[in-house]
Amino acid sequence: MTVNYTMLTDFYELTMANGYFEHGIGDREACFDMFFRSVPDGGGFAIMAGVEQMITYLQNLRFSDEDIAYLRGKGCFSEAFLDYLAHFRFACDVWAIPEGTPIFPSEPIVTVRGPILQAQFVETMILLTINHQSLIATKACRICRAAGKSVVMEFGSRRAQGYDGAVLGARASYIGGCAATANAMADRDYGIPAAGTMAHSWVMTFDSEYEAFKAYAETYPGACTLLVDTYSVLKSGMPNAIRCFKEVLAPMGYRPQGVRIDSGDIAYLSKKMREMLDRAGFPDCKIVASNALDEFIIKDLMTQGAPIDSFGVGERLITSRSEPVFGGVYKLSGIERDGVMQPKLKISENVGKITNPAFKTVWRLYDRASGRAIADVVTLFDEVIDDTKPYLIFDPEHTWKRKLVTDFTARRLPVQLFRKGEPVYRSPDIHAIRDYCAAQIETLWDEVLRFENPHIYYVDLSKKLWDIKQELLASHGE
Amino acid sequence: MTVNYTMLTDFYELTMANGYFEHGIGDREACFDMFFRSVPDGGGFAIMAGVEQMITYLQNLRFSDEDIAYLRGKGCFSEAFLDYLAHFRFACDVWAIPEGTPIFPSEPIVTVRGPILQAQFVETMILLTINHQSLIATKACRICRAAGKSVVMEFGSRRAQGYDGAVLGARASYIGGCAATANAMADRDYGIPAAGTMAHSWVMTFDSEYEAFKAYAETYPGACTLLVDTYSVLKSGMPNAIRCFKEVLAPMGYRPQGVRIDSGDIAYLSKKMREMLDRAGFPDCKIVASNALDEFIIKDLMTQGAPIDSFGVGERLITSRSEPVFGGVYKLSGIERDGVMQPKLKISENVGKITNPAFKTVWRLYDRASGRAIADVVTLFDEVIDDTKPYLIFDPEHTWKRKLVTDFTARRLPVQLFRKGEPVYRSPDIHAIRDYCAAQIETLWDEVLRFENPHIYYVDLSKKLWDIKQELLASHGE
Repeated sequence: MTVNYTMLTDFYELTMANGYFEHGIGDREACFDMFFRSVPDGGGFAIMAGVEQMITYLQNLRFSDEDIAYLRGKGCFSEAFLDYLAHFRFACDVWAIPEGTPIFPSEPIVTVRGPILQAQFVETMILLTINHQSLIATKACRICRAAGKSVVMEFGSRRAQGYDGAVLGARASYIGGCAATANAMADRDYGIPAAGTMAHSWVMTFDSEYEAFKAYAETYPGACTLLVDTYSVLKSGMPNAIRCFKEVLAPMGYRPQGVRIDSGDIAYLSKKMREMLDRAGFPDCKIVASNALDEFIIKDLMTQGAPIDSFGVGERLITSRSEPVFGGVYKLSGIERDGVMQPKLKISENVGKITNPAFKTVWRLYDRASGRAIADVVTLFDEVIDDTKPYLIFDPEHTWKRKLVTDFTARRLPVQLFRKGEPVYRSPDIHAIRDYCAAQIETLWDEVLRFENPHIYYVDLSKKLWDIKQELLASHGE
Repeated sequence: MTVNYTMLTDFYELTMANGYFEHGIGDREACFDMFFRSVPDGGGFAIMAGVEQMITYLQNLRFSDEDIAYLRGKGCFSEAFLDYLAHFRFACDVWAIPEGTPIFPSEPIVTVRGPILQAQFVETMILLTINHQSLIATKACRICRAAGKSVVMEFGSRRAQGYDGAVLGARASYIGGCAATANAMADRDYGIPAAGTMAHSWVMTFDSEYEAFKAYAETYPGACTLLVDTYSVLKSGMPNAIRCFKEVLAPMGYRPQGVRIDSGDIAYLSKKMREMLDRAGFPDCKIVASNALDEFIIKDLMTQGAPIDSFGVGERLITSRSEPVFGGVYKLSGIERDGVMQPKLKISENVGKITNPAFKTVWRLYDRASGRAIADVVTLFDEVIDDTKPYLIFDPEHTWKRKLVTDFTARRLPVQLFRKGEPVYRSPDIHAIRDYCAAQIETLWDEVLRFENPHIYYVDLSKKLWDIKQELLASHGE
């Protein structure tokens, strides 16, 4: 079921829309960019996610009779405007960087161009959609990188911030590298593999831990992962699990899948568990650990040599607990006047908040020999970076820092999603997005991948764009 | 439109359900409690929220043909179980503490009793629903208390974690004390008053700030709040706003509603703005401030005497940024055996994680003279606290700490929501919930309301319940 989110908007988008309409300027062409200013958790890059849901939203933009009646009841919209909304047809061009791409501060990750009334109106949902999923995909990517070759499963639904916080959060986690989710709806609706075994209450329901294990193994002999920490992991849970593997599974011809712990000193316990399993003849039985995990705890566990095959990560992933906000913003970059698109920038006393003007796009330059990403360059939309010739990049703040890039390939990152309101892009399937994300992360240097104090990846401006920005800044001072 | 969230569940609820069913124990009667262990942000209390959405979920529990087909495709569920799901009818009793009530750690805030298969199955959505809204209501309550008599508006949709993170977050914020939201859908669907004026892009779209203000004032003369920080608040924004109030609004017979700032030193600017407005003859014009606010910054602003009438609070409210997780859990407290409900508790090496056993409820004792809440007492479900007689309360950990309570009224906090699966409770309207919340906060002592290091409110156990717990703990040691 697709919910219509047309009315999920800040009320000021509606008051502004009505204002533009009433002043006869609703159709003036404008450009807006979404970008973000800093990577959560001090990381070196973020992961783009949410594009598919943004497309669905834009495709379904329409106001129902109920919406019109609601708006009329607010008493601040003209009948002519309400009539416009009743016949609303989305007419903008939209571009976005594809899902799963590493993204960096200050570059346009979504660009909308079209009638200002419309291009402004879609702000809230574009930000909400991309901010949320990019936040979770970015966090998942950190956690999965910490886990190395071990697998990470998303277990956070019960602590998510709302229903699609859980479901779309599971989707974003998968893009960022998780192997599975506990959420059945994310599996049904988005094809994210769902997994799950038992809770402590299962074990407590039976007269003994062994009987609980036996009952589970009889029902799921081929997928038997037992939760061994309801009473005592080493004194009771593990001996009972091993007995169950031998007395119940083996006669049925099955090998155990795993044992799971959700409490206690996971590093110590997992080593003891591994020993017990190996000694009992189950070196192939996996160890699954959960309980308030995040990238730092997982990295610590790996450093301590904890033999954990699979991590279940809950609240700290599904809410990105250490930094639960992805600060994407949506800013006007140009407005048409007398048939010409005039570049615009937002001045701020905080120079870090001055925006980049003009209708633009962004390119990524890859080193031809290593395949690594060298820099991103934000250019005017119509500029083309010709990778058959050397290209000079420079730091837009400290322009004496220059570099002549040679032997590179240049890739325009954004793809067009809508042309005059018509969808022209088909999202890859979710598994392809996940694979693409993993491959793109491989193009980043280790220095950018580092968790602490990573190298700041270059996001430069083309000379033409830089000149326009300087001109606008200078004219503002006049 | 009501989305059916039956499949929004951890996959292990389904594997366990199938397991109970296959072992013929799905109908054994069980009790579960939802409770939480600590208040976010180190606060003295939390605010219960989400009950209405939990009711909607439970009322709509049913598996569609599509769901059954999806589950069959997983290859791990029996046909008899799938048939049971296809004819699923919810048959549990459910109780919850009403929305807007201050709640405390360790007490049952939701209790479910019924066939274990069902009572277990609903875990994920009960936790998700109550955890999310209680988190946001609790944060809103902190922020609104910091703002004192000034008004707080929820402005966070664009940074929310998903769509109902925004919409239901706005609902929860309202329960916790916010006066309005920016979210139009929360207004349309839940009656939370929506408000909104203009973005910086409105101001940038016109040839000058004054023209932008004039256009807005002409369209909304009766609700004219102007955003004055696009260029320079004191040199440009305020003079242009005041000119607009005089030259546009006054001739139309209107007074200005407000001016808004979203950047800069809010304490300093708001004082200067107040002076300029008063001097210009607009002492009734309100000052609205936003920009990365939370309870600590607002408290600071109030201490500095910033004359702000209204705060717009965004990402730090809608994600509860400083602590984005409400850690409610759902634990088995009893299971029927031979027709008798056997109390159960979960042992843990971490004594703070040992649960309270048995089918139970919770009472709040109010001092008759002051109306203040003295303590909560968790009792067996059938116990009645007779407030015509003195009642002895004691600390369940340090039992020598005792107090004989006299001259009090006792109120059983949970209300019954479902009887054998039939809804028997009607949620109050959202404004009544908000009023009730404000009134209930008034019953808390200042020591409990304190932000830093608050008094730990007493949540005691009745003697009968305490005895059962000790017995179970003792028998576990055997």
